[in-house]
Amino acid sequence: MIDGSILIGGSAIQRDVKFRAHEAASGEVIGPEYSEASQADVENACAKAAIASEPFGALEPALRAAFIDAVADQILAIGDELIEVAMAETGLPRTRLEGERGRTVGQLRMFAAEVRHGRWLDVTIDPAMPERVPPRADLRRMNIPLGPVAVFGASNFPLAFSVAGGDTASAFAAGCPVVVKGHPAHPGTGELIARAIRSAVQSCGLPEGVFSYLPGSTNGLGGALVADPRIKAVGFTGSRSGGLALVEIAHKRPEPIPVYAEMSSINPVVLMPAALAARAEALGAAFIGSLTLGAGQFCTNPGLVIALDGPDLDRFVASASAALAAAPPPVMLTPGIHAAFTAGVAALDGNAAAKRIGAGALFETTATQFIADRSLGHEVFGVSSLIVRCTDMNEIAQVIAELEGQLTATLQIDPADIGDAAPILSLLQAKVGRVLANGWPTGVEVTHAMVHGGPFPATSDGRTTSVGTLAMTRFLRPVCYQDLPDALLPPALQAANPWKLRRRVNGVQEPA
Amino acid sequence: MIDGSILIGGSAIQRDVKFRAHEAASGEVIGPEYSEASQADVENACAKAAIASEPFGALEPALRAAFIDAVADQILAIGDELIEVAMAETGLPRTRLEGERGRTVGQLRMFAAEVRHGRWLDVTIDPAMPERVPPRADLRRMNIPLGPVAVFGASNFPLAFSVAGGDTASAFAAGCPVVVKGHPAHPGTGELIARAIRSAVQSCGLPEGVFSYLPGSTNGLGGALVADPRIKAVGFTGSRSGGLALVEIAHKRPEPIPVYAEMSSINPVVLMPAALAARAEALGAAFIGSLTLGAGQFCTNPGLVIALDGPDLDRFVASASAALAAAPPPVMLTPGIHAAFTAGVAALDGNAAAKRIGAGALFETTATQFIADRSLGHEVFGVSSLIVRCTDMNEIAQVIAELEGQLTATLQIDPADIGDAAPILSLLQAKVGRVLANGWPTGVEVTHAMVHGGPFPATSDGRTTSVGTLAMTRFLRPVCYQDLPDALLPPALQAANPWKLRRRVNGVQEPA
Repeated sequence: MIDGSILIGGSAIQRDVKFRAHEAASGEVIGPEYSEASQADVENACAKAAIASEPFGALEPALRAAFIDAVADQILAIGDELIEVAMAETGLPRTRLEGERGRTVGQLRMFAAEVRHGRWLDVTIDPAMPERVPPRADLRRMNIPLGPVAVFGASNFPLAFSVAGGDTASAFAAGCPVVVKGHPAHPGTGELIARAIRSAVQSCGLPEGVFSYLPGSTNGLGGALVADPRIKAVGFTGSRSGGLALVEIAHKRPEPIPVYAEMSSINPVVLMPAALAARAEALGAAFIGSLTLGAGQFCTNPGLVIALDGPDLDRFVASASAALAAAPPPVMLTPGIHAAFTAGVAALDGNAAAKRIGAGALFETTATQFIADRSLGHEVFGVSSLIVRCTDMNEIAQVIAELEGQLTATLQIDPADIGDAAPILSLLQAKVGRVLANGWPTGVEVTHAMVHGGPFPATSDGRTTSVGTLAMTRFLRPVCYQDLPDALLPPALQAANPWKLRRRVNGVQEPA
Repeated sequence: MIDGSILIGGSAIQRDVKFRAHEAASGEVIGPEYSEASQADVENACAKAAIASEPFGALEPALRAAFIDAVADQILAIGDELIEVAMAETGLPRTRLEGERGRTVGQLRMFAAEVRHGRWLDVTIDPAMPERVPPRADLRRMNIPLGPVAVFGASNFPLAFSVAGGDTASAFAAGCPVVVKGHPAHPGTGELIARAIRSAVQSCGLPEGVFSYLPGSTNGLGGALVADPRIKAVGFTGSRSGGLALVEIAHKRPEPIPVYAEMSSINPVVLMPAALAARAEALGAAFIGSLTLGAGQFCTNPGLVIALDGPDLDRFVASASAALAAAPPPVMLTPGIHAAFTAGVAALDGNAAAKRIGAGALFETTATQFIADRSLGHEVFGVSSLIVRCTDMNEIAQVIAELEGQLTATLQIDPADIGDAAPILSLLQAKVGRVLANGWPTGVEVTHAMVHGGPFPATSDGRTTSVGTLAMTRFLRPVCYQDLPDALLPPALQAANPWKLRRRVNGVQEPA
C-alpha cells in the first residue's frame, strides 16, 4: 500500500528525486523510495486547495462532520500495518502508538461533534431598527474559514500531531482545505494516513483539493508551501528554529498570514516547601517518570525544577537520580534529534554554572546562576532537566520572572503551601498556557477546556491552542452581512435558521 | 483645563520639547504648547502599566464595568469644551462631533455591559473523571488579559477612534491597562479625554498605571512605545505605512506581539445591472453623499465603483458628477492628509488609464486597464473615487478577484439581480470584513454583530474587528487550569461560581 507517492488531491505522483526512511532503533533503511515533492507539486496542490476552498467552507455542518468521522474510520481501517510501520519509523512502542491512534481518532470525532454543534459559527444577529433615528441596518455576523491551510507535522507524535493530527483536524473542522508537508522521519506512516484521508474525501464526494500530501526532506519544500499565495494560514509543531523560519516567510509575503507554530518549552515545575517536605522521594520518582516518557521527546517535558535548597530537595534529587539510573535507555526519533540532544547536554556539561547529578542528563544550578545565564533556560529536547536551588520564596519568584513563555507550569503543593502558592501562581499564569497542580505536564487531554499553547516562544501566537476544540478558531474569521436579502445570506444567517443553530440575537443567546 | 501635559498614571508632566496644535480650517496655531513625551516617559508609563496589569486584569467584572461607565460619565462631564476644542482642531462640524461623542460614550457603555455579562471569559470546564482509565484531570479554561496595550488613535475620528475610542474601550474591557500615544492633530481634544479617563481611574480607586497618555508628534515616540517589553499588544488606526511600520517593530521584538492595525481600504461598490437600470440617478447622488462624508476621510469611504458599461452607468456618472459639483468644499484634517490627497489625485491625473469626470476627483477606467495597473487600486484618502467600466459579469468578477483585502464591499441589487449576485457575493466575502446591500459603507454601527476589519492590507490581522463587542477578544488569551485546588483558582473558575457566570461544562452550555 505504501509506494512513496506524492498525493495531490486524487492523483498519486512519483518524482525522480527520492529520499529514504530509516528504522529509528537501528538506523537501517526501510520501506520504498519516497518521492520528494517539487515546487510544481506545491503549486498544483495549492491550486486544487483554492478550488476546493469555497465549496468545502460552505458545506453544511453535518456533511463536514461526516467527512471528519470518515477520516477517523479510514484510519482505523488501515489496521495493524499503521502501528507496525510507525513502530519501525519512530522507535516508539506498540502500546504508545496504539494509544496515540486512539487519541487521533478520538480527536477527529470530537471535532466532528463540535462542527455539528455549530457553536464555532458564533452566529450573532442585531436586527434592523427601522424606527430608530437614524435607522439601524440589519447586521448578521458569522465565522468563515480562512482558506487553505498548510500543516507541518511533528516527528514526536507521528499520528496525533502529524498528517491527521490536531492541526489538520481543526482546519478541516473550520472548513479549510489542508496541504500537509509530510515529515521525513515517518514517511510510511504519513503516506498511510494521507491515503486514508484521501479515501474519506472521495467517499464523501468532496472536491479533491480538500487534502493533499507533499512528502519531502528539505526545508525549501516547506518554505515554498508557506510562500504560496493561496495558503492562508499555517499550523506547525516542531523546533524553535523551524517555526521561526516559517513565521519569517509568512511575514514577508505580499499578504502576510498567521502561523500557529508550537515550538519550545521547558515547562517549569515548582516544588512548594510543604509538598517537598511531605513527599520528596515520591515526587523525585514521579518527575523522572514524566521526564523519560517518549524518550523525553514531549513538548511538555519537565525541563526545569524550581525549589528551595535544603535537605528536602536533596532527598528529591537522590530519588530522581536513582530513578533515572534505573530507566531504560531511550531510543530517539531521528539522528538529528539525537545530535541536538547530545549538543545540548554537552553545553550544560561545559557550563560551570550547571552541575551534573549522577549518570543521566540531570543538572542542578542556583537561582543566582540561573538568572545570570539565560542559556541555562534553553530547551534540551530529550531526557534532560535542570534543578534550580533557591534560597527563599523570593528567589523562586525571581527565577519565574526570568522565564520566557511556556506551554505549561506545574505546582507541587500541599494544603500548607496554598498561601505562598498564590503569588507564584499569579506569576506563572502570565507565562503559560496551562497551569497544573500535583500532576506532571506530559500528557495533554483532548477536551474543550485544554490549552496547548502559551506566550512566545512556546508558540508564535499565544492567543490560541493547538489541542482541544478551541483549536479550530485559529482558522476562522468573522464576517458581517448588512441588510443582505435573505436569499443571498449563508444558511447559518437566514431567517429560517435551517441549520437550527443557537444564535445570539440583540446580545441575548438563544436557549438550547 | 488643557495645559499640554503628559499624563503618566496620576502624574502630569511637562517637558522642554514642545509641539503646537493648529486650527484645521485656517492653519493658525491654537491652544497651549504641548509637551513632547520622551523615552523616559514611555518607560515610566509602561512600568506603571505593568504594575497595574495583574490587579486590573483580575478585577471582578462588575468593578471593571463600573470603571468603564465612569469613563463615559467623565467624558460627558467635560461638557461643550470638548466639542469646541475638537471642532477647532479637526474642522469637523458640531453635529458630527456631538454624534461622535454619543457614539464614543455609547461604545463604552456597551463594553461595560459586555464585561458584566462575563461571556468574554468563555469559562469552559471539563470535570475530572477519576474512574476513567487513565483518569482524566479536572480542566478549567478561561480567558485572561494579554497585559498592557499601546493605543494609537486616528486623526479622522478624534473621539470614537482616539484616546477613549474603540481600541481603548475594548482593551479596558478585556482587563488591559492602556498607554495611549496621543495624535498630534488633536492634542487638546486628546488631553481633555485623557484627563477624563484619569479621573475615572482615580474615582474608582484603581491603580494609576491603568491609563497613561503620551502626546507627541514624532514616529520615534510610537516606535519606542511598541518596542517596550512591557507592552503586550497594539491597537492602531491610521495609514498603511504607519501601521506596517508598527507591525515591523512588533515583529522584531525579542517577544513579538500582536498588532491590530486598521490601515487602508477602497471599499468596492458593485452596481448590479437591474439596480443600476432602476435607480441610476438616485444611486449616483447617494454615492456622493457617502463619498463626501467627513470630507471623504472615512476608512469605509467608497473609493471604487464597479459596474457594467452602458447608458445606465452613464446616468449614474452624470448624477454623481452633478452631486459632487454641488457638494461644499471639504476641510481636511491636517496639512499632511491634504498633501497626500493632492498627490494621490495627481497620480490618477497623470495616469492615462484613468480619466477624470467633471471637476472633482472622480475618475473612470476600464476593467482591462484596472487589472493591468495595480496602482489604480491604491487608496486615495479623501473625496476621490474610481469607477470601473466592465463589459460583462465575468469582467466584474475578474476585477473583484484582483482586489486586495478590504474593510467592506457593497452590492447595489434589485430582486432581479439576485441570481447574478450570488457568485459575486462569494468572491467579495473572501476579501472583506463586512458585506452590505443597498446601503453605503460609511457609518459603522457599534453592535455585537459588527465587523470593522478584513484581510490584509485592510488590517494587519483579518481575524478580528476593531468595532463592536467582539473587539475585546483581541486582547485576551486562554489559560487552562488543571487540578488546581479551588482556593487557588480564579473566581471565574471556582466551584461556587461566585460571579454567576454561564459556563460550558463537559461541552454543554449552562442555561441563562
